[in-house]
Amino acid sequence: MTAETRQDRFERGMRVLSTIDGEAGERVVSSLADISPELGHQVAAWGFGDIYSRPGLAPRDRQLVTIGMLTALGGCEPQLEVHVNASLNVGLTPEEIVEAMLHSAVYCGFPKALNATFVAKKVFGERGLLPVGGR
Amino acid sequence: MTAETRQDRFERGMRVLSTIDGEAGERVVSSLADISPELGHQVAAWGFGDIYSRPGLAPRDRQLVTIGMLTALGGCEPQLEVHVNASLNVGLTPEEIVEAMLHSAVYCGFPKALNATFVAKKVFGERGLLPVGGR
Amino acid sequence: MTAETRQDRFERGMRVLSTIDGEAGERVVSSLADISPELGHQVAAWGFGDIYSRPGLAPRDRQLVTIGMLTALGGCEPQLEVHVNASLNVGLTPEEIVEAMLHSAVYCGFPKALNATFVAKKVFGERGLLPVGGR
Amino acid sequence: MTAETRQDRFERGMRVLSTIDGEAGERVVSSLADISPELGHQVAAWGFGDIYSRPGLAPRDRQLVTIGMLTALGGCEPQLEVHVNASLNVGLTPEEIVEAMLHSAVYCGFPKALNATFVAKKVFGERGLLPVGGR
Amino acid sequence: MTAETRQDRFERGMRVLSTIDGEAGERVVSSLADISPELGHQVAAWGFGDIYSRPGLAPRDRQLVTIGMLTALGGCEPQLEVHVNASLNVGLTPEEIVEAMLHSAVYCGFPKALNATFVAKKVFGERGLLPVGGR
Amino acid sequence: MTAETRQDRFERGMRVLSTIDGEAGERVVSSLADISPELGHQVAAWGFGDIYSRPGLAPRDRQLVTIGMLTALGGCEPQLEVHVNASLNVGLTPEEIVEAMLHSAVYCGFPKALNATFVAKKVFGERGLLPVGGR
Repeated sequence: MTAETRQDRFERGMRVLSTIDGEAGERVVSSLADISPELGHQVAAWGFGDIYSRPGLAPRDRQLVTIGMLTALGGCEPQLEVHVNASLNVGLTPEEIVEAMLHSAVYCGFPKALNATFVAKKVFGERGLLPVGGR
Repeated sequence: MTAETRQDRFERGMRVLSTIDGEAGERVVSSLADISPELGHQVAAWGFGDIYSRPGLAPRDRQLVTIGMLTALGGCEPQLEVHVNASLNVGLTPEEIVEAMLHSAVYCGFPKALNATFVAKKVFGERGLLPVGGR
Repeated sequence: MTAETRQDRFERGMRVLSTIDGEAGERVVSSLADISPELGHQVAAWGFGDIYSRPGLAPRDRQLVTIGMLTALGGCEPQLEVHVNASLNVGLTPEEIVEAMLHSAVYCGFPKALNATFVAKKVFGERGLLPVGGR
Repeated sequence: MTAETRQDRFERGMRVLSTIDGEAGERVVSSLADISPELGHQVAAWGFGDIYSRPGLAPRDRQLVTIGMLTALGGCEPQLEVHVNASLNVGLTPEEIVEAMLHSAVYCGFPKALNATFVAKKVFGERGLLPVGGR
Repeated sequence: MTAETRQDRFERGMRVLSTIDGEAGERVVSSLADISPELGHQVAAWGFGDIYSRPGLAPRDRQLVTIGMLTALGGCEPQLEVHVNASLNVGLTPEEIVEAMLHSAVYCGFPKALNATFVAKKVFGERGLLPVGGR
Repeated sequence: MTAETRQDRFERGMRVLSTIDGEAGERVVSSLADISPELGHQVAAWGFGDIYSRPGLAPRDRQLVTIGMLTALGGCEPQLEVHVNASLNVGLTPEEIVEAMLHSAVYCGFPKALNATFVAKKVFGERGLLPVGGR
């Protein structure tokens, strides 16, 4: 079992975060620098370094769970935007993301499914992925 | 028991949606066309065609329940805006809508009651219904 | 404008609470006597005396809003049980209550609609109101 | 485009529901028979027949999204119990389910992650799947 | 036990509200004047006059509870903004507020902790309190 | 900056957890041993070792925030029970805990305030602390 310093853990987490979330994730951490650098540290060191990087669930699968959670929580549109991008980065297709949000209507109701879908529309628009093929 | 095609169900739902929610509801469905046409289909076919149109509860009563739900869920201001308009369309008075939101403070607390009330203020302002008579 | 003492307000609220919620509501207040009598006071004096009793919305309509809120909040089954009883007390029919909960599935999803419906099943069972006529 | 009766849609949904959720899902529908048969109808016809059965997302993936949503919503332990069983039925391993719930701690916090994990413990215990391999 | 009129109670509440929340709180009440003056009345008379002013918990402690609640509820950023200001007004330091929000990540997850922290960043920026000392 | 192994971090966290939450907290960790030992590890190592133990906010103050969050989240009664005990352990009085829950009614509504207060009643009863002095 390896000993790590606080800085080791942060750097390990930031490498995972950058791979998954890209620049959008890095911007969240850097925007915390003047208000709560510790929160930025923990997002990277714990959220990504300790949990996300565990081998027991593929990144693609983690994103499906995350989309479900952020849709259900409500009011987390900024985080959902980061994670729709992350979902594309780790190999979910636009069709799968949109289908997951349609699926969410059954468990969370239409309002939250709509809010999530409009976040996906924003991200897909920015990445030139519209229109998404319907049925 | 009549057999219906998918398209029959959609058209039946859209007629209900248009009657209740008006153009604001139609805009939600059309704004889904390039991202999740299936979600738009289901909002109309299921939400309005299968559920809202049932005779067991008057539209006015459905809107009271809906205002309660959207206020309690939080983060559903866009949907609440559609449904404040819908509530006026089906016969609830501005006074009743505002009173329902005051009532919500007892069960959901002031923050959510305030968020809902400011949505009503926006809608009533657009429809020339301000000021609402206080006590 | 009449001046009232704290006790006046409490008694006025308890009369409304007893009319609407019956013994179930009184039990909530009395069960608070040894832990938070002030919370019991405020439920009666403010919730019922100041808000529920206002004339701007009929008790039946308040219950529709309340069912919507308690279904959407989740985890409020004890309060929903009191309010399903209250809904019957103020004139909502079992069919309307069940229809409101079906309607909630569109906005809150099936899990919360199911939780609410099983609370109604418990209350209706205790009051000899099962089966409720379906379609 | 095929025309279907209400009964056709229900039967098609029940076949999907039985395949995914097994007897636990059928029990939910039958327990609604005396209180809200329409809710049971819609869970089957819409939730499973119209949405779950769509080919755009594999059942295993739908369950990952669903576990995320039910964990995040909170207060939906009965539904989570059905869906932990369903997740096993469609091929998620106990290790993946538990990992998804650990992952949820990052986005929903420990209390909801704990509630979900104890539901998994109950289901896995009933199915002889304890202990789950840790690290 | 003193008798009070409705107006007495409102004025007593407004004095507490003004002391704690300052102009931001007064603006909430005045912005309700044309839509729901009764809600503004109750925020002041009940929320501040009856509850906040009770001696059993110091204003600083009430703000810690309030920050926890508003962070957990989600979607209450406007109210959180008022209460971050209020927290500073009653003596919590920027460091304590930020630490409370970091603490919230354990119980509510990172997305809500981030949303709250960015509200604090806005308020602290307006009051010239950035950067907050990190580790 | 000291280097720590995974085991070091866990042991450091367990010492904090045991001091704050006592046996109730240890039981949560041990009850995870056969289902998700990693979740138990993270509750201790991260929740208590990394976050709770930080000097920026006193344990008493962390408990006020935590009571606020758990009351607002809803459906977290088991965790609230642990934290009402923890709150007493770190020096909050029964009167302060009950007052914090009364305060929560303003922001979360009565149902969640009632659920939290009945958890406090259970804990205080077990510890021989009833009745709590009212006003």
